[in-house]
Amino acid sequence: MAKGWYFKAHPDALPTLDHVELRDIPHADLGAGQVRVRNAYLSVDPYMRGRMTKQKSYVPGFQIGELLTGGAVGEVIESKADGFAVGDRISHMMGWRDEAIVDIIPGVNKLPPMDVPIQTFLHNLGMTGATAYFGLLKTASAKEGDIVFVSAAAGAVGSAVVQIAKKKGMTVIGSAGGADKCAFVRSLGADACIDYKAGPVLPQLMAAAPDGIDVYFDNVGSDQLDAAFATARDWARFAICGMIDRYNDATRGTEFNYLIRTIPARIRMQGFIVSDYAADMGQFIGEMGPWVATGAITMNETVHQGVETSFDAFLGLFAGANTGKMLVKI
Amino acid sequence: MAKGWYFKAHPDALPTLDHVELRDIPHADLGAGQVRVRNAYLSVDPYMRGRMTKQKSYVPGFQIGELLTGGAVGEVIESKADGFAVGDRISHMMGWRDEAIVDIIPGVNKLPPMDVPIQTFLHNLGMTGATAYFGLLKTASAKEGDIVFVSAAAGAVGSAVVQIAKKKGMTVIGSAGGADKCAFVRSLGADACIDYKAGPVLPQLMAAAPDGIDVYFDNVGSDQLDAAFATARDWARFAICGMIDRYNDATRGTEFNYLIRTIPARIRMQGFIVSDYAADMGQFIGEMGPWVATGAITMNETVHQGVETSFDAFLGLFAGANTGKMLVKI
Repeated sequence: MAKGWYFKAHPDALPTLDHVELRDIPHADLGAGQVRVRNAYLSVDPYMRGRMTKQKSYVPGFQIGELLTGGAVGEVIESKADGFAVGDRISHMMGWRDEAIVDIIPGVNKLPPMDVPIQTFLHNLGMTGATAYFGLLKTASAKEGDIVFVSAAAGAVGSAVVQIAKKKGMTVIGSAGGADKCAFVRSLGADACIDYKAGPVLPQLMAAAPDGIDVYFDNVGSDQLDAAFATARDWARFAICGMIDRYNDATRGTEFNYLIRTIPARIRMQGFIVSDYAADMGQFIGEMGPWVATGAITMNETVHQGVETSFDAFLGLFAGANTGKMLVKI
Repeated sequence: MAKGWYFKAHPDALPTLDHVELRDIPHADLGAGQVRVRNAYLSVDPYMRGRMTKQKSYVPGFQIGELLTGGAVGEVIESKADGFAVGDRISHMMGWRDEAIVDIIPGVNKLPPMDVPIQTFLHNLGMTGATAYFGLLKTASAKEGDIVFVSAAAGAVGSAVVQIAKKKGMTVIGSAGGADKCAFVRSLGADACIDYKAGPVLPQLMAAAPDGIDVYFDNVGSDQLDAAFATARDWARFAICGMIDRYNDATRGTEFNYLIRTIPARIRMQGFIVSDYAADMGQFIGEMGPWVATGAITMNETVHQGVETSFDAFLGLFAGANTGKMLVKI
């Protein structure tokens, strides 16, 4: 019997097993245009926390009593969709379960014919890589020679940002929590890495980027964002991808001391969502594909085993338990 | 003997007479390319506070022992500059004094040949009007049909923003302090005005703009900016022109509760300085000139009399003592 995670209640702070539960999924027959998939890997991502709040977010909220959803890749085990046969590998959004029924969307679910591990399409060639690529190059208009600061640089998106920025000839300063993660960030090619657990971010950033920064790729918010305001050079661009520091505490405000520098430095701060660039996915695969296939950009993963570990994997995102992409292998 | 305001010391909070003083200006002969001007009007502007801090700002800081500078208009009383004769009216940056020596910059100081009061070139056809025009239409990309929120809407720049936005077919919500100022803002054509002295900004803004805002023109920062984050619609644009709430207290941080909405709403926040658009001044004069000349856009002024009142006029900016443009008439 297939198993999946159901949504029970809206959490106010860090979610617990009061808010989600693993249950058997009642069997359903396939309809026309649907396939049944045995999932190989599930993605857990910080943005899913936003779907657990009642507050309106950019993706619809999870519904009480229904299965959670999220990115997943797997193999078709039954098909009523034209062009999809048993054994085909697909990418889809029916994650948080070991077996899924997927409504096929033409042009979306088929994986590119590349000889790479299937989880690559959740990672560097999936939403994670696309978020890094578009946020850096389009939202922040980062270009060769720029000095780039990226927070959560040891995380899934951050570690892709570091590597893409280096490929494009930028200077990169990452931030991460702890000496091991900072060593990892430097191993990806970063010119420097700030350990936010070792002390305040701003003085470390000023030391690492004495001439200031041109680009900030924000995954964290709070004092990392404020440090970016403090050190921004004229015409700096901030791509606001995430604020993981805020997701589990919506009640507390965040204090900024340097936001006022937006005016003299003419900072541009822009929020984005990867789906804003859906029309440019061909460009992304065209450039990122060869980097990934040749190993020029590496995949770094923290993998949990079994659908029953999905929630622990998810919670680990907020504890900094992952280096690189957090995945659940079924 | 000419008199002018000298800079004595850097203020940490609201400036006092410990930081500036009015003194006689030693006589100097004109050099080649210079004119002597009898000033008619001096401009006092919030940005001048930034020039009094030691912190690097977008214009050079005032130097201890030297005269303050700022926008001014007046009449040439002596000339050693080609093309400038006694009686010519010019605009220049040697304000804070009754008589000035000006280094003529070709193409900058001559006033357009328009039959309007001379102070118009400090106001709706000067830096104030250009700041409103470019910030609204270029920095914020505001267009017909947009719902625009502008803070300090009874002030110099804000009252121009309200009027330009209405000319361009936008819905306008202003904010100002007190019932009289709000009545003034509505008299300019604003669809609604929020009185920030009557209660918190956010619930008032939500009531005035139940569908949210597309554009925020920020002159204030703090809770007005946070309210804009809270109510921003998808793809909202914020032009950050000033944060007068912060100028006299650099030590205190500002708390934001809604900045995180930058991500789901894909807010673009952009700082700007009017001089960024120097190349577009022709477009500004071409469109704003007829509006001003025909009275379609009105000038509203708070005028102090005499160079000795300049500092009081300046301090009045931070007490909300002005409705419309604050000027000193010599």
